[in-house]
Order: sequence, then structure tokens, then C-alpha cells
Amino acid sequence: MKLTFSPGSPYARKVRIAAIELGLIDRIALVPTAVQPGKFNEDYSRTVNPLRKLPALILDDGSTIVDSFVIAEYLDDLAGGGKLFPAEGPDKWKRKTEHSIIQGMLEAMLLCRYEKAVRPENLRWQTWLDDRWDRAWQGFALFESLPSTFTRPFDITQIALICVLGYADFRFPDCGWRKAFPKLTAFNEKMMQRPSVKDTVPPPA
Amino acid sequence: MKLTFSPGSPYARKVRIAAIELGLIDRIALVPTAVQPGKFNEDYSRTVNPLRKLPALILDDGSTIVDSFVIAEYLDDLAGGGKLFPAEGPDKWKRKTEHSIIQGMLEAMLLCRYEKAVRPENLRWQTWLDDRWDRAWQGFALFESLPSTFTRPFDITQIALICVLGYADFRFPDCGWRKAFPKLTAFNEKMMQRPSVKDTVPPPA
Repeated sequence: MKLTFSPGSPYARKVRIAAIELGLIDRIALVPTAVQPGKFNEDYSRTVNPLRKLPALILDDGSTIVDSFVIAEYLDDLAGGGKLFPAEGPDKWKRKTEHSIIQGMLEAMLLCRYEKAVRPENLRWQTWLDDRWDRAWQGFALFESLPSTFTRPFDITQIALICVLGYADFRFPDCGWRKAFPKLTAFNEKMMQRPSVKDTVPPPA
Repeated sequence: MKLTFSPGSPYARKVRIAAIELGLIDRIALVPTAVQPGKFNEDYSRTVNPLRKLPALILDDGSTIVDSFVIAEYLDDLAGGGKLFPAEGPDKWKRKTEHSIIQGMLEAMLLCRYEKAVRPENLRWQTWLDDRWDRAWQGFALFESLPSTFTRPFDITQIALICVLGYADFRFPDCGWRKAFPKLTAFNEKMMQRPSVKDTVPPPA
């Protein structure tokens, strides 16, 4: 299998952590890929993902799996199932809901990044930036108030949380999440002991 | 159960169509809800979804399920499973991948809508609009080239496609998708025979 990725992509990091934890990383060739708004990478668009997003998992039969959540679910299934995702019951829907929220936080932060660093300076809109940032921040506040998130066996919610916190450090180092959210801070420090987490930290911005 | 929704939301429409097809719509109270960029709906943010997005399914025990895909999966499970989503095998991952692509198309189109109609006119950026629109358009082109999508028993990919085409008509009536994509046009016309589809068309913009 091949995985398109970039070292800074929090979505790709989620899959890399899952693959390491599931013992599947040696079966995946990592293919560095550049995608950027305004660059029409037609080859990637036509053969891998019309959305031009990372990551995509390309199977040996040439078919492709997206997005990062579906890839992580697929890998969990490949490893026997029920490892990072509860196979059934109320917890199954709780983890999926938590992941959807974290995915939305990441999307909001990515839009903040585009607004602050990609859009021409004279076309930036503070109201939009504040709106998107507030969504991410409310998400952090939600997880800060759910302490059971931090003590469960390692799962997809924890992986996604690590990736969103790592992305905050990577692109918004002055946002102050550690000061505002002490439980998330302690969780993040504990998780940094895991090789899968430590070895996938984004490079210096 | 309660579902937060608005009549124009393509994400909420996906859930409404799924609920009708699965015979569950009578068990769901539809709760009209307004969300808009720049409006900090703190109550919704704190008690339903920190991302302030529609739809959310609120269960009788007070817990919440998001996003639209997870809600549709949950309802399918509640109806016995394997109805709109293949329960296992390669098709399971194909449908999830297709849905992820359609979800990304919708997100791209929503960002186009915000750029064209919500952001102050002097702060709009054509490059961004072209970039997001191209992602959606490449997605349409992908499905136009996958005729088996249109002839399978009714499934989650077809529901999501109907919602994205309906959203194109709702917000981008001059985009010309019918002229560019004759197979999608025929599919859409056929689908409009289904009450679940016809009765959930967005109101005039």
C-alpha cells in the first residue's frame, strides 16, 4: 500500500500514528506529496483525489481510500478490528462523534491558516478568522471537560486530539492552548512518551 | 430523537432522505436551527456542537451524534444495518471513500458560497474561489465517469450525490452542471421520482 502525505499534515499524521500502533506501518510506502490552494495538481486530482487533499491510501489493486478517518478505520479492520475503534455499542457512536468534532476543529484551523498566511494580506477578514478560531477553541474546551477521554485505552479520539494539538503548536504557536487547557496539556505530555506520537511530530514550521 | 436542521442544508437533507428511506423519519422531531458564520450561537456551541454545524442528532438520553455521515450510519444501524451502507467487504470502503469525496465537494461549494455572498465584497479572492470550485467540479467529473454509481440499489453515495446536485441548483443555479454532466443529469431526474428526494428539495433561494 502507498500513503500520500506531507510531514506537516495533521490528517496524514493521524493515519501514520494509527498505522504504527496497529503494527502496519511496514506495509505502507509513504509518498511525499505537495498540495496547496491555487495549485491545480491535475495528475493528483484525476488519479488520486479530485479534492487534492492528503492523505490518500492507494491499495495494491490501484483503488484509493480517503479520507484520513476512513483510512484509519480500514487499517483497524485490516489489523483485526476493534483496536482503535469500538466495534459496536454506544461507544462506537461516541468515538465517531468525537472524531467528527476534532475533524471540524482541524478544518477550522486550516481555514485560519489559509486566511492568515495564504490569502493576500489586503483581502483578509478578521470576522471570518475569529469565527473559525472560536469553533476550534470551543472544541478544545469541550474535550478539556471530558476527562475520561484522557484515561481510556489508546483510541482514535486520542490520536485525533494529539494531531490537532500538534497542529496548534505547528501553525499557531502563540495561541496559548496550554495555558487555557491544563488537562489537555497533561494529556499531550503523557502521549509524547509514545514512539508513534513522538516520531510523527511536525517538523519546525 | 431530535434532529437540528435547516431546509437549505445539504448535510441535513442527507440525513432526512436516509431517515425517510429507512422508515425512521416518524421517530425524529425536526428542530429548525439557524447557524451562520460570524454569529456566535453559544448555546448551540456548548450544548450541541462546538463547531456550530448542522445537522446534529440528539438522542433521548441527551447525547448527541455528529456529523451527517455518522448520523446516517447510526440510523442505518438502528434500522437493522446494511441497508444504505454495505456492512463489509471492498464495497464498504468504496462507499465510504465516495462519501468522503462528496463531503469534500460540499465543503468546497460552501466555502465558495461564503466567499461570494457572505464575505465583504472588497475582501473576496478569485484565486480561492476558483480553487474551491475546481475541487467540486473535478468531483462531479469523477462521478460522471463512474456509471455503476447510478444503477446500484439506493445507497449513501447516491443520497450524497443528490444533495450536492441539489445544493448546486440552490446556490449556484448558473454553474451549468447539467450541460457538462449528462449522466449526472439523467441520474438526478430519475432520483427526483422518489418521495424522499422530491420532498426534501431546498426551498427557492
